[in-house]
Amino acid sequence: MRLALAAAAAAFLSIPVQTGPVQAAELPEEARVHARALAEAGLESDLAYRLTESLTTEIGPRLAGTPQEARARDWAVEMFNELGFENVRVEDFPMDLWTRGYSIFEEVAITHPFPQELYATSLGGAAATPEGGIEAEIVFFDSFDDLLEFDGANDALEGKLVFVNDRMTAARTGEGYGWANRKRTLGWIEAENRGAAGLLIRSVGTSSHRFAHTGMMSFPAERLPGIPALAVSAPDADQIERIHAMGETMRVALRTHAGWRGEVTSGNVIAEIVGAEAPEEIVIIGAHLDSWDNGTGALDDGAGVGIVTAAARLIMDAGVRPRRTIRVVLFGAEEVGLVGARAYARARMEDGTVDQHVIGSESDFGARNVWRLSSGVGEHAVGFFDAMHEELEFLGIERGGNSSGGGPDMIPLAAMGVPMARLDQDGTDYFEFHHTPNDTFDKIVPEEMAQNVAAWAMFTWFLADSDVDFRARPEAGDAEEGEPAQ
Amino acid sequence: MRLALAAAAAAFLSIPVQTGPVQAAELPEEARVHARALAEAGLESDLAYRLTESLTTEIGPRLAGTPQEARARDWAVEMFNELGFENVRVEDFPMDLWTRGYSIFEEVAITHPFPQELYATSLGGAAATPEGGIEAEIVFFDSFDDLLEFDGANDALEGKLVFVNDRMTAARTGEGYGWANRKRTLGWIEAENRGAAGLLIRSVGTSSHRFAHTGMMSFPAERLPGIPALAVSAPDADQIERIHAMGETMRVALRTHAGWRGEVTSGNVIAEIVGAEAPEEIVIIGAHLDSWDNGTGALDDGAGVGIVTAAARLIMDAGVRPRRTIRVVLFGAEEVGLVGARAYARARMEDGTVDQHVIGSESDFGARNVWRLSSGVGEHAVGFFDAMHEELEFLGIERGGNSSGGGPDMIPLAAMGVPMARLDQDGTDYFEFHHTPNDTFDKIVPEEMAQNVAAWAMFTWFLADSDVDFRARPEAGDAEEGEPAQ
Repeated sequence: MRLALAAAAAAFLSIPVQTGPVQAAELPEEARVHARALAEAGLESDLAYRLTESLTTEIGPRLAGTPQEARARDWAVEMFNELGFENVRVEDFPMDLWTRGYSIFEEVAITHPFPQELYATSLGGAAATPEGGIEAEIVFFDSFDDLLEFDGANDALEGKLVFVNDRMTAARTGEGYGWANRKRTLGWIEAENRGAAGLLIRSVGTSSHRFAHTGMMSFPAERLPGIPALAVSAPDADQIERIHAMGETMRVALRTHAGWRGEVTSGNVIAEIVGAEAPEEIVIIGAHLDSWDNGTGALDDGAGVGIVTAAARLIMDAGVRPRRTIRVVLFGAEEVGLVGARAYARARMEDGTVDQHVIGSESDFGARNVWRLSSGVGEHAVGFFDAMHEELEFLGIERGGNSSGGGPDMIPLAAMGVPMARLDQDGTDYFEFHHTPNDTFDKIVPEEMAQNVAAWAMFTWFLADSDVDFRARPEAGDAEEGEPAQ
Repeated sequence: MRLALAAAAAAFLSIPVQTGPVQAAELPEEARVHARALAEAGLESDLAYRLTESLTTEIGPRLAGTPQEARARDWAVEMFNELGFENVRVEDFPMDLWTRGYSIFEEVAITHPFPQELYATSLGGAAATPEGGIEAEIVFFDSFDDLLEFDGANDALEGKLVFVNDRMTAARTGEGYGWANRKRTLGWIEAENRGAAGLLIRSVGTSSHRFAHTGMMSFPAERLPGIPALAVSAPDADQIERIHAMGETMRVALRTHAGWRGEVTSGNVIAEIVGAEAPEEIVIIGAHLDSWDNGTGALDDGAGVGIVTAAARLIMDAGVRPRRTIRVVLFGAEEVGLVGARAYARARMEDGTVDQHVIGSESDFGARNVWRLSSGVGEHAVGFFDAMHEELEFLGIERGGNSSGGGPDMIPLAAMGVPMARLDQDGTDYFEFHHTPNDTFDKIVPEEMAQNVAAWAMFTWFLADSDVDFRARPEAGDAEEGEPAQ
């Protein structure tokens, strides 16, 4: 039942190893039959759905570093043990805790010219207002670029509230997010450097519903914000935009309690299916346990937790150990800056096992169908993915390119040279819910989750039962010289 | 350009007046041409849209009896005067003010077994929790009927929080609302009578988004609640339902500040187009100015304010006065129990002009297309509406029955015998937004509003330029005896 890739390797050796695509590797009939059976079982499984239901109900919101996130780790350990995983453990790491304060609700209101409350949320890392709050004039910027280029008088923003109005557009790949997110991650610096009393932004995300979109800010050079920074919901941003268009001077009052609370402990939860022949070779599949505090983190990333766990459990249930070890990692503290992922990578540096990670992938983009298989592997291994794609195609999955990462929590490992692959999910409406109170379990469609599990079970099986080295080879000529190092 | 209804009257007199439908009255060519021109202008007009934008932006939320609602009256007076209406005036009335307290945000959380904050809103009229809040066990009722029938031990609900889980289903007519609303209006009595410490309900409305749906409770026999009563959003109700299904005892903490604040002044804003031939005959068209406090009341009922005002203004702009007076009334304090509508009716009783109201209608069901013309008039006048329907049909409007009311604020007048008619709007998604923070201006489609204005302009013109008496006649035989009384 192993993926005897001798045939594939032979095929590889028979073609010139220089540039251009390599011939598709063939996957043995036996492996394909086993993978197909896993997929069929996946399509019938509600395990991922039930795991996500359990996590989002029994824990609910689980902000990094809080007691809720610690409860999520306990939940995960118990769950992995109950499902029969091996080597279940928690790897603790320290982190700096930031919280919103007393409640998920924050007090923001237009005071002039048209008094009304706004729906808003502090951005991760923001400072509180002074006790009692602040009230200041809005200076309106139609885009983050306009703020970057702002060359008004030195004191033009002094004591004011900077408002940035960029809009995000929806896409299956979610590709508008990075651009739209600049105001969220870096807006505070531009505002603070110009003397502003605070930052307000139109929520990142594509929703027209009245939810504010939170998310972490960036802290270049370890500098932390001294000002409050909040996102208002799209309808509230529309209000601000309309009032601005009327030529009115606008004042807004805020009172927030956000801040850094000191060092706390978080952790990554790890579970394995130990490989039969090469247990030291690790296929790492992951998701993250933490979520933002305003929703229950069903799409981000309860769904991922359910999907990768259920896929691994299917492989276990089929009764055939893969050649390599499958390691499921549920990362802590993803939302606040990949803190768990960095801790994991650092620990692997320390224990010298980075190179044992043959490939990695994360599920962290909601619960819609997988529509594409992308890879980020050595050119010689592209054919393996092309062959895998032929098997996944019956699930409606296209073949993507070979420049893919593996997901947010895979970034530190990828930076250390671990090959990556990804099952890309349809993200067209992901940013309708992401990082808002509306990221809740009812948004998940069970059949779509099952399609994910089917795809992940096949994908993980093919990767774990293979002996292909996915790492890029320094020189094309090396490829012919025998086994690459692990 | 009058609707010379001699022909229609003649047609009417030529048929037996006993039972069953009468022959469709014909509308004169001249009137039909004028009405069609009004509709064409309506389809091109963005006045309703702009008025709703202005009201919802420049006033925003306008809870009955608050300074915001008073600002809305000032806005309406100024608007009517600018648009050239006649007899613009405010009729004040006293009312009891209820408010939520400090903020639209309320503190509700599950404390056991799975601590997490919930999105909730006090129901109108609810009491506050004691200072510092309460924490109590949830007793779960799958439906309001289950609560009604609850015959547990006398103290089974003593000190507990009653939760009622009824779901509402969507319909074009919104017909599921009344049934689903029973738990909101009457649940507090059933809970309080059984010694409960408070009431929680699954939000009325059809939305799966994480918004709680507010709305007034009922107070039979002038009794006021002594307990807090709140709705939680659908996803939060799902959580409670799931935890209940697990067999877990559940505890919830609340801290609310809602309460009655004493007598204040509200008002109805009135404006007219005075009739050319029978100015004492009044066609009353209305909408309500107040809204709930959690949204900006764009669909409920900023849209109605825009629609009826724009329709009347189109008639004015066409330069031909109708035979009768068109009276536009923007009612105050609708949401809290038709307080403005009752005050209006009482004032007409006092000034003896109830019978001068020949027919009434209100726009208060959002901003989607009108799909049906319904009437509630004397049998002899059904033919008039059938003929009107033929003219409205090009807007995609069907003919409804003859047992219709005129809308919420028309109820007191209808009870005094004023005939009613209604342009029914598509309400399929009205309860996605209604009474939630998500009732905001961006939800309105300009083209749909314009269709409303076109329909209302035709409808109002036909009614106001007619001399048909729409009142039911005590005996069929009376119909042949000449002019009915006004």
